[in-house]
Amino acid sequence: MSKNLTKRADDYSKWYNELVVKADLAENSAVRGCMVIKPYGYAIWEKMQAELDRMFKATGHQNAYFPLFVPKSLFEAEEKNAEGFAKECAVVTHYRLQNDPDNEGKLRVDPEAKLEEELVVRPTSEAIIWNTYKGWIQSYRDLPILINQWANVVRWEMRTRLFLRTAEFLWQEGHTAHATEAEAIAETEQMNKVYAEFAENFMAIPVIKGVKTESERFAGAVDTHCIEALMQDGKALQAGTSHFLGQNFAKAFDVKFTNKEGKLDHVWATSWGVSTRLMGALIMTHSDDQGLVLPPNLAPFQVVIVPIYKSDEQLEAITAVVSKLKSSLENNNISVKFDDRDTYRPGAKFAQHELQGVPLRIAIGPKDLENGTVELARRDTLTKEVVSIEGIEEKISDLLKTIQSDLFQKALAFRESHITEVDNFDDFKNTLETKGGFISAHWDGTAETETKIKELTKATIRCIPYDSKIEAGNCVFTGNPSKQRVLFAKAY
Amino acid sequence: MSKNLTKRADDYSKWYNELVVKADLAENSAVRGCMVIKPYGYAIWEKMQAELDRMFKATGHQNAYFPLFVPKSLFEAEEKNAEGFAKECAVVTHYRLQNDPDNEGKLRVDPEAKLEEELVVRPTSEAIIWNTYKGWIQSYRDLPILINQWANVVRWEMRTRLFLRTAEFLWQEGHTAHATEAEAIAETEQMNKVYAEFAENFMAIPVIKGVKTESERFAGAVDTHCIEALMQDGKALQAGTSHFLGQNFAKAFDVKFTNKEGKLDHVWATSWGVSTRLMGALIMTHSDDQGLVLPPNLAPFQVVIVPIYKSDEQLEAITAVVSKLKSSLENNNISVKFDDRDTYRPGAKFAQHELQGVPLRIAIGPKDLENGTVELARRDTLTKEVVSIEGIEEKISDLLKTIQSDLFQKALAFRESHITEVDNFDDFKNTLETKGGFISAHWDGTAETETKIKELTKATIRCIPYDSKIEAGNCVFTGNPSKQRVLFAKAY
Repeated sequence: MSKNLTKRADDYSKWYNELVVKADLAENSAVRGCMVIKPYGYAIWEKMQAELDRMFKATGHQNAYFPLFVPKSLFEAEEKNAEGFAKECAVVTHYRLQNDPDNEGKLRVDPEAKLEEELVVRPTSEAIIWNTYKGWIQSYRDLPILINQWANVVRWEMRTRLFLRTAEFLWQEGHTAHATEAEAIAETEQMNKVYAEFAENFMAIPVIKGVKTESERFAGAVDTHCIEALMQDGKALQAGTSHFLGQNFAKAFDVKFTNKEGKLDHVWATSWGVSTRLMGALIMTHSDDQGLVLPPNLAPFQVVIVPIYKSDEQLEAITAVVSKLKSSLENNNISVKFDDRDTYRPGAKFAQHELQGVPLRIAIGPKDLENGTVELARRDTLTKEVVSIEGIEEKISDLLKTIQSDLFQKALAFRESHITEVDNFDDFKNTLETKGGFISAHWDGTAETETKIKELTKATIRCIPYDSKIEAGNCVFTGNPSKQRVLFAKAY
Repeated sequence: MSKNLTKRADDYSKWYNELVVKADLAENSAVRGCMVIKPYGYAIWEKMQAELDRMFKATGHQNAYFPLFVPKSLFEAEEKNAEGFAKECAVVTHYRLQNDPDNEGKLRVDPEAKLEEELVVRPTSEAIIWNTYKGWIQSYRDLPILINQWANVVRWEMRTRLFLRTAEFLWQEGHTAHATEAEAIAETEQMNKVYAEFAENFMAIPVIKGVKTESERFAGAVDTHCIEALMQDGKALQAGTSHFLGQNFAKAFDVKFTNKEGKLDHVWATSWGVSTRLMGALIMTHSDDQGLVLPPNLAPFQVVIVPIYKSDEQLEAITAVVSKLKSSLENNNISVKFDDRDTYRPGAKFAQHELQGVPLRIAIGPKDLENGTVELARRDTLTKEVVSIEGIEEKISDLLKTIQSDLFQKALAFRESHITEVDNFDDFKNTLETKGGFISAHWDGTAETETKIKELTKATIRCIPYDSKIEAGNCVFTGNPSKQRVLFAKAY
């Protein structure tokens, strides 16, 4: 377990890549752009999944599972969606390998086993799902359909980075069908709100809720809502999206229903998703030069206990005390690991748990046994104190809540200090280069201006925030009239 | 919701297919051999997942995630494994589609986007995982590795059936690495035992634990342990397998470690899995001509409450009582659905819940309100009784335990009465044709005899049971000496 982590100030991107690997979260695999999510990283993802799943079910959704493959003819049915994903999809063309006659012991694709129709590995599942919904929906009585799927998807990205952009990633995708436009829009907004609450209350990541501009919309959507987070290096990260799909997919797949008045109409749709990309947001919101910092809600274990001993008798005495302490903490719903490995020294253990972001560390040695104390260290502040073991459960329980809340407040303060209102393009460029973060500026509403600004600065419009007030102004680039400010940033 | 289910006695296979679709468990999709798992079916699968996941973690395993794709060169590394799966795998050859110049609005594979090396969609993950473990294992201190993965896999089966044999299916696959042969064998046996406990205690499916013959082994395994269940139609179903892989994969991927004595050795391996096939076993163990019968442990909701009313006032009065009853049951950890849909009549609701196997149904009407009673119906026995609403929580809680246990006992009695010892081949054939079930017979231990019997009768050796006693005998087919009986059956 070598630490030697690159400092964030020296090379943020290198720091990120090293941290992901050294903290045992994920690593690159033998397959270009595909990652292996290691047990420690996966345990964090499982905690996200469990909480999101709870929230989806609490809002009336059920899980289901649809095929991994999308036949090409279905894939191309919704034109914009197809156009958006065609350039980066994995295509299955054959269903068998055979011995290679020219290469003893090697296999090759069997040319006889070519599929009549190619199968696209799903980059997203609207096509296969709406083709299925067609068979499920006849009448208003069959609506709404409120379904979520936990799945893997594949997008053949050219430049990949662990968690942030990988060819295969894990996600959930909600796909709902409604009788009215208003109901579908309400669902779109509701799920974006669910994502925001999850990010803020569970992951301690402050986010801005808003709507995407036309050019940043999901391919096939009428409107894309999103939550945008700000990373420590001043770049934004889109943490979740919720799309109002109008009747686009219903029309592409001919999904109609008889409404209460007996009239036939196309069904209204939404889709919404978050992915293992959230792991990237988590890391780049809270972590520091010592490694990962985890909000207690997401920590695979919230407390690690390290025994400090020289003799077997000492370890035995410590273990007796720790066993009681561990059960007592667990009874208070605190997850605890007793790290009694005899293959590593305490120093190495401290370094590892710091690197892996365990919120609280308890060290206990023979002196502590005499005094009825332990040493308690906070990962987020890197502070230590000696505390009495008596009543420590309550102290730890309180501290975990404090850490969860402190992490959010710290990230929020950073985010708030990194939203800059600018009113001319020099300030825009200057702020972007020197300070980073979100730039709140007027925009004339055209895709042309948006593209121009992106070409010149690499900044994109992250969203039109829900709470952006209507006010007359002039576009920061063209000077043309604008009715509200939008948020620009460089983004992951 | 049309019932009209084919009777099992008329056509068991048709009954099964109809039941899966009509009970809203799953359906075929637009992709050949791939199914859609519908919300009700998926909710049952989620219950299986949760319990298995708990059991895996209780035995020290962690979850992780490995890539969907296996590069061809890795896929072919372990020769027997490759040979076993090469004939039925989906192969990705391209990573982009483009507009078809000959076909306006259509897409085609972009010939420029051919992969340098083809990717196999994982049919199982030993290859990609052992190629990863190579980087994780240097010393005995890195062992054991105890990892499980929840994932989708693809095997291009020619003849598919919902849940039982599908091109894509969901499963879990455990992959463990050990320092010693003994430890790996113990792990193989432990996980087979975990599967047996899960099947019997949680799914109420009696199983026989045993070991596969060489010809029925997993491709690449030294030994395959399994649990075998018996379906109502007298055919066996392999419900789970646990493989001792020896050093085969460690050798194929060159995974060595330094042991405590400082010597280099190849790592020992196991893998084990169960899949959505268990849904098929569940259906064919407990269900009847009226539809699905669910053990309470697996029911998405254990109790359904149907109001019987003519006026809105009646519904209101019933709802008031039901709300209290529902919370009170939920406080006793009983899951309840109040089916107050006004779009269906009570008769249609009864039929649907019977078809979907809800363990207990409560009907409550105005008379019941007067008398302080409800009508309580058991799905497994199709019996009804009028009971007092007072103290009903305890009665229901007890009844659910009784149903769980009764279902197991009923299936066990059926299984026990369908293990037939035979000592000559005429009896063998006769029993197989007239009675079905497991046939316990002596076998000379050769693959030749096994194949011959399979050709003549379609029966295969399901397993050599753990508890098969060593006794001298003569092979039921060749008359050659045999040292123990094995279990034959026709199988799914």
